[in-house]
Formats: sequence, C-alpha cells, structure tokens
Amino acid sequence: MNQETAKIPQATAKRLPLYYRFIKNLSSSGKQRVSSKELSEAVKVDSATIRRDFSYFGALGKKGYGYNVNYLLSFFRKTLDQDALTKVILIGVGNLGTAFLHYNFIKNNNTKIEMAFDVDPGKVGTDIGDVPVYSLDELEERLEGENIEVAILTVPATSAQNITDRLVSSDIKGVLNFTPARLSVPNHIRIHHIDLAVELQSLVYFLKHYTEEDTEMSQDESVTE
Amino acid sequence: MNQETAKIPQATAKRLPLYYRFIKNLSSSGKQRVSSKELSEAVKVDSATIRRDFSYFGALGKKGYGYNVNYLLSFFRKTLDQDALTKVILIGVGNLGTAFLHYNFIKNNNTKIEMAFDVDPGKVGTDIGDVPVYSLDELEERLEGENIEVAILTVPATSAQNITDRLVSSDIKGVLNFTPARLSVPNHIRIHHIDLAVELQSLVYFLKHYTEEDTEMSQDESVTE
Repeated sequence: MNQETAKIPQATAKRLPLYYRFIKNLSSSGKQRVSSKELSEAVKVDSATIRRDFSYFGALGKKGYGYNVNYLLSFFRKTLDQDALTKVILIGVGNLGTAFLHYNFIKNNNTKIEMAFDVDPGKVGTDIGDVPVYSLDELEERLEGENIEVAILTVPATSAQNITDRLVSSDIKGVLNFTPARLSVPNHIRIHHIDLAVELQSLVYFLKHYTEEDTEMSQDESVTE
Repeated sequence: MNQETAKIPQATAKRLPLYYRFIKNLSSSGKQRVSSKELSEAVKVDSATIRRDFSYFGALGKKGYGYNVNYLLSFFRKTLDQDALTKVILIGVGNLGTAFLHYNFIKNNNTKIEMAFDVDPGKVGTDIGDVPVYSLDELEERLEGENIEVAILTVPATSAQNITDRLVSSDIKGVLNFTPARLSVPNHIRIHHIDLAVELQSLVYFLKHYTEEDTEMSQDESVTE
C-alpha cells in the first residue's frame, strides 16, 4: 500500500477512475493542459470538487494555465496501478453477466475477466466475449493458484451468500455485488454493492424531493456510502 | 416537494430505498421493533450512520427498545411515494437492458418499466419481461401524453447524447445512465450515472490502497458524489 495515496478520502478515491479515463483521452489527442472548468464539463463533477480532489494528490493547477495533462496521466496511471493487469472472475452468466462479458474493460482500465461460471449446462463450455464459461462446481479448482482477487457477482439473490462464502474460502478479496442480497463477509473482504432497484428508486426520490438549487450538480454518480 | 424531507442530506436520501426494503421485509414477517445494530447487520451500513440518518427524519430510537417498525414503514412509504406508481422507459434492449426488463422492480418499489425502445427490427414488436419493445423512431410519439419522467439508458455510448437530447425534448426529467458517456443536459434534468468499468476499477483501487481499518465498513455502496 502506498502511504501517500492512502490518505486520499474515499469519495475522492472513487472519482479517480473517472478522471483517469478522461485525462487519458486528452493525452491521446495531444492536449498538454486542461483547466478544472474543462474537466468539470467533461466528467460532470463540479470544478470546486475537482480542485479539492486534485489538491490531495499534489496536483496544483496554475491560474490561467490549469493542470499539466502528462503529470496527471502519470499520476493516475501509477496510483491506479495501470501497469499491472488485474484479473477478475464473473459468476452468473445471465443477461447482466453477459453484458459484462461483452464489455471491454481492458480498453480503459487494466482489468480483465479471466473466467466466468454458471450452473446452466447450455452455457458451460462456451466462450462469451472471449471468456470461457465453466461449471460453478469447478469454482474452487479453477481458482486454485490463479491469484485472482476480485469477483463480479451477477447471480440470483438466493444464491449470493452461498457463492460468496465459497469465494471467500478461495481467497477472493473483493466482490462487486449486483444482487439485491446484502452479503455477510469477514472484515478483510471488501464488497461494493450495486443494486439496480435502489439506484432507480433513488433517482425517482431525488426527482421528487430535490430541486436543482439543492444540488451542487444535477449529474450525480450512483450511490450511497 | 415536501419541505421537511428536502432537508435530508443527499447521502442519507440515497440510503432510504435500502432501508425501506429491509423495513418492509421486517414488517411482513410481523416484527414490531428493530435495533440500529440489527439494521446495520442486515443492510451493511454502520450503526452510527443509521442512527444519524434516522435522526434526520425524526425517528429517535429508544435505548433498549430500538425503532418501531411500523412507524419507520409508514415514514418510508410516504417519503418514497410508494403509493404512487412511477412509470419508466428503457432505451436499448441489449444484454443489460434485457436484464432490467426481467427485473421485477414493482415488487420492492413502486416503479414500472412501461415501454422499451430499440433499433433492432428483430426486437421491435416483441415483449420482453412483459414490456413491449418499440422502435426508437417512435420515441417521441409513444411518450406523448404519457407523463413519463424517467428513462433508463442502456445503449452504446456513441448514441447516448443524441438519445438524451431527444428524451429531454420529450419532457423526461431523470436519466439512469449506464453508458460510459458523460451527458450534457439542461440544469433541470437529473442524471444518475452508473459506469460498470468505473465501479470495477474503483473496487480494485480500494483493495490495493485501503486496509480494513481505513473504512468504517468494508461493505460499501457503489459510488462517488
């Protein structure tokens, strides 16, 4: 763990991948500098938040100049460990899982779904989006010695806890949980939870209860903690 | 807009649907009261946060008793407008869109996908998850007079802005954006953005840079603002 970046607040840390993607595009297009206003318009985060975020990692924009794109790019690449490939598995090849398998994560961040697992014999043995689909029965065996730490969970809620227990036993450290189930895990396991119904209900709630004056920005990242 | 609930901080407001779902289940199972500790274990939000959140809406738990389930349930039902059905449309019936159409939102929150739109002639005219799929060409015509304010956007990133412009012209007020595109909209339109690659990268980043002591809770909601 890098002590320096470990001091970045979590809310800021969560915006890093977003900044990184945009800065990478800027750099590819040959741009040398960028203002917080331009960044704000592109990533839809208000510019005061951007300036505060960037100050945490020592990128202090100069008035009338903005930020140096290459400095930002190398900072983000290092901080987000873009030079090391992160291998991921996916459990549950339904519609949502299939959407993930077709999503080219490696293009914008150095993350690759290595294997997928399902219980459907019609899916086991196939390749989807170039990812092999194995039987869920083989989970432990396939993970053995692979040093994979992250799993995407797109199974029915009723199977989620049982599969999570098996993932934890197989040394998975982080789970991106797309099921409505709230998972119980040991403290050293990190769960990020994305609940589609909660996201939808939250949007509806905000439409009804918040006027534009109430919000810093009408565009908002997903949810909660 | 309800002035009373408009005072609730946004981070708290975003957790309401999560609390509501759990309280509803408790009530269905005949439970009369619940402690913040029980709530915390079930919804995976730390109990200090729960107590602070609940204090905003006047639900002050009693020591040794906890919260009254029926009081909470009626508060949440009213605040989340559960007695009024919210109609939603979905644009883009790919894998992710199809996952949404099969998701029974109405079961846990009073939200219903009324229509879906796609450009694929093989999908137009079919019903998926009991939702009719129309041609995207008919978007404006189908929305006319329907009083639908929310759209779920699950199209390729390259089409996202163009379709969003059409949605805004058709009086859509909120968009749940699942594309990587950052959308430009007038101030009165609310966008919630859920970017699958950013979620994945954010989880990987946290695994590498945060130990369990750094976090209030290892289980975390999705993202950012």
